[in-house]
Amino acid sequence: LEIDHVGILVADLDRAVRFHVEALGFTESFREFVADQDVEIAGLCAGESYVELLRAQSDDSPLTRFLGQAQTKLHHIAYRVADLRAALAECSSRGIAAIDESPRRGARNSLVAFLHPKSTNGVLIELCQRD
Amino acid sequence: LEIDHVGILVADLDRAVRFHVEALGFTESFREFVADQDVEIAGLCAGESYVELLRAQSDDSPLTRFLGQAQTKLHHIAYRVADLRAALAECSSRGIAAIDESPRRGARNSLVAFLHPKSTNGVLIELCQRD
Repeated sequence: LEIDHVGILVADLDRAVRFHVEALGFTESFREFVADQDVEIAGLCAGESYVELLRAQSDDSPLTRFLGQAQTKLHHIAYRVADLRAALAECSSRGIAAIDESPRRGARNSLVAFLHPKSTNGVLIELCQRD
Repeated sequence: LEIDHVGILVADLDRAVRFHVEALGFTESFREFVADQDVEIAGLCAGESYVELLRAQSDDSPLTRFLGQAQTKLHHIAYRVADLRAALAECSSRGIAAIDESPRRGARNSLVAFLHPKSTNGVLIELCQRD
C-alpha cells in the first residue's frame, strides 16, 4: 500500500500553490475541477505521490465547514490500490463501511472511494485506483 | 520533493496499528519511542514513504491537546530533503520561520525540523533528512 496523495484543504488555492512551489520547491503537476465534489484541485508532484491542494467552491460544502476559519488544514490521506472494487469488497467483508459504496471519478481520471470515518476511528481515508 | 511520511495522532497505538495492518493491509515497519517529543511511533511501510502513527505519552503535551477527544487525527506531513541544514537556511532566507531552527533526531535516526505553522498558513509541515 502506497500513499497516492494527501489532501490539504485551503482557503486560497493560488496562494497555497505559490507557497508550495516558490517556498518549498514543488512542481505543479495538474489543476482541475472535480464537479461532483464541487472542488478545485491543484496537484503537486511528490515522487510517486501527490500533494493535492483542495479549494471548495461552495460556502455550504462539508469541506468548507471542515476548514472553518483556518487558512489550510490536512483533510484526508489516500492509499493507492490496484483494484478499487476488490478493495471495497474486502473492506466490506471486514465490517469497514465506505462513504462511497462504489468507485467514482476523482482527479487525474482515477477511481476513488472514501471509507467512513466511523470505521477508521476518525481519519478520513480514501482508496484510489490510478487510471 | 517527496512525502517522507504522514503523521497521524492516535489515542490507542495498538488498536490503530491493528486497523492499518489487518483491515488495510499495511506492514508494521518499526516502533520506537522518541524521547524529546515524548511520543511513541509506529511506522507503517507505504512504498518509499511511511505512515507514522503517533501516541503522545503525556496528558499535557501539545499532541494530546491537538488530538482532543478524537480517536485519530491527521497531524503533520513530512517532506524529504537531501540536506536539512541547507533546506532550513533556504526557508529562512525566504522568510519562513521554523519551530526547530536546527535539525534534531526523529524516528529511524532521521534528522527532522518542523516549520512554523504561521509560515505555512496552518498545516504543520516537517522537513526530514533520512539517515
